[in-house]
Amino acid sequence: MKILITGAAGFIATNLVPRLLQAGHEVHGIDNFFLGRREFVARSPEMHFHEMDLLDRDGVAALFAEVKPDRVWHLAANSDISFGTTYTDFDLKGGTLVTYNILEAMRLAETKEIVFASSGSIYGEPAVMPTPEDYGPLFPISMYAASKIACETMITAFCNNYEMRTWIFRFGNVVGPFPTHGVIYDFVRKLMADPARLQVLGDGKQSKPYVHVEDCLDGMMFGQEHAREEVNCYNLAVPDQTSVNKIAQWTIEEMGLDPERVRVERTGTKRGWTGDVTQVLLDTRRMQALGWRPKMSSDEAVRRSIREIVERRRDGGG
Amino acid sequence: MKILITGAAGFIATNLVPRLLQAGHEVHGIDNFFLGRREFVARSPEMHFHEMDLLDRDGVAALFAEVKPDRVWHLAANSDISFGTTYTDFDLKGGTLVTYNILEAMRLAETKEIVFASSGSIYGEPAVMPTPEDYGPLFPISMYAASKIACETMITAFCNNYEMRTWIFRFGNVVGPFPTHGVIYDFVRKLMADPARLQVLGDGKQSKPYVHVEDCLDGMMFGQEHAREEVNCYNLAVPDQTSVNKIAQWTIEEMGLDPERVRVERTGTKRGWTGDVTQVLLDTRRMQALGWRPKMSSDEAVRRSIREIVERRRDGGG
Repeated sequence: MKILITGAAGFIATNLVPRLLQAGHEVHGIDNFFLGRREFVARSPEMHFHEMDLLDRDGVAALFAEVKPDRVWHLAANSDISFGTTYTDFDLKGGTLVTYNILEAMRLAETKEIVFASSGSIYGEPAVMPTPEDYGPLFPISMYAASKIACETMITAFCNNYEMRTWIFRFGNVVGPFPTHGVIYDFVRKLMADPARLQVLGDGKQSKPYVHVEDCLDGMMFGQEHAREEVNCYNLAVPDQTSVNKIAQWTIEEMGLDPERVRVERTGTKRGWTGDVTQVLLDTRRMQALGWRPKMSSDEAVRRSIREIVERRRDGGG
Repeated sequence: MKILITGAAGFIATNLVPRLLQAGHEVHGIDNFFLGRREFVARSPEMHFHEMDLLDRDGVAALFAEVKPDRVWHLAANSDISFGTTYTDFDLKGGTLVTYNILEAMRLAETKEIVFASSGSIYGEPAVMPTPEDYGPLFPISMYAASKIACETMITAFCNNYEMRTWIFRFGNVVGPFPTHGVIYDFVRKLMADPARLQVLGDGKQSKPYVHVEDCLDGMMFGQEHAREEVNCYNLAVPDQTSVNKIAQWTIEEMGLDPERVRVERTGTKRGWTGDVTQVLLDTRRMQALGWRPKMSSDEAVRRSIREIVERRRDGGG
């Protein structure tokens, strides 16, 4: 099968592509290297890589017309949520417009299947926790989440109108090797720059479900294979959560630093940044009913990711 | 208070503006006359009218900077839902991008309040009818509805991040004088062109709640005054519904035609057009709990609208 991946130089794709290649698929990747890394692409020389900005509607349509992919894994996104508060059209462009361009290119090239990386942040600060997929109304906090909802609804409208099929996965916080962003990545970088001091955005009490990228990929692939509706939508996370304070403590430990000698400075606000949702807990029973559950708890996923990232950093990796 | 209305030459604004002027507000209106009419604007000479395309982001921002409105009534939209299937970026531009431009102009001009005309179509084909405001998940059928959800979520993200306040009203089908679109308007125009034949899109069994624009305005003004959350979201409709077949029959009668001599031709498909939702019933208990209910039933609203439109047509009006 011909599979096209957007955000192909990013965190999740870098973990995904080897699996798809191993399964015998012809894999095409698109990335503009805004967040993605050339060295991540270099890890999968069998992937047909196309350097392209997904905002280039004509370019995207031409590529789809040429490749005629059977399925799209749409993973490209601005994953730095706080950006959207400073540049208010950042997610509109990098999320909403980009997704439209892909859907329209799919329609023209008669590509019928799209797997979409959505986010548990779309629930905003929900009245129900753990939050199920049918929670409403959706009043998101961040521009990022607003754009993810816009993408989901465009995708479902295209599915309804043009006989496409979609698998939408609303992720918890995904962690693991080859990160381009995120709290663990930030903490490791900060401590490498200054091992005596760690700045924590917010009061550190923010708690979210962290899912390891290996579990995340298992879940997406299982869901994509087993869910057969026209529109398939699942929370993809772990049922528990981990606090930012714990992550700070474990990162200090895993880096071999003496906790007594690292000054942890909390900015002290409730939210880590404007647009941050401080308490996330996702209802994962739909995925369980489908027959899948993650191997690692949130705490296990976090600890393993810290080790993986610290080790790769020590080895001079990304 | 300084009020700025988008879609100021359109159906709902033409009915709304006289009320706002009578209440003593300084009213500014924007329209590009894509659907709106110059003769509708001419009815309210006290309104400060600005001919402008809302896609002109700099122009919109400059106008907001100059006018510094206290409140926006954002009514501009592509109200011809079937358009979005042919031109798949029509609602993305005319709905989503336009709404972003307004929100960004509001942020820069420190305008803090926005009343937004959303739509019951956002619920798609819901499993729960009558459909309440907290229904989920939102998998819309039309591009129009997908864009309305995108707008709602951008508005709520702006409210959450920039201390704005919103009143979102999810309309049933609004009917009444000064229409620019809609089933009654279509039927009257078709029968004036050919009194012997009426084409009905679909099987005519599509049934929706029709709310008269006078009730709709009463509801919006009541809601805007009495609902005091940061994000206020209400279905604004009638609790019952009217079928397209009934509307066809009544339009023939009100036009003084002999039903025996009008050949009603149904296209016969389930949906009237790609993207059409055939059965709509909205749960209106939230508005009732706030203290408001419509004066007219769906059938009453439809019959009165037909009369109003036929009479204005006979008088040579729009």
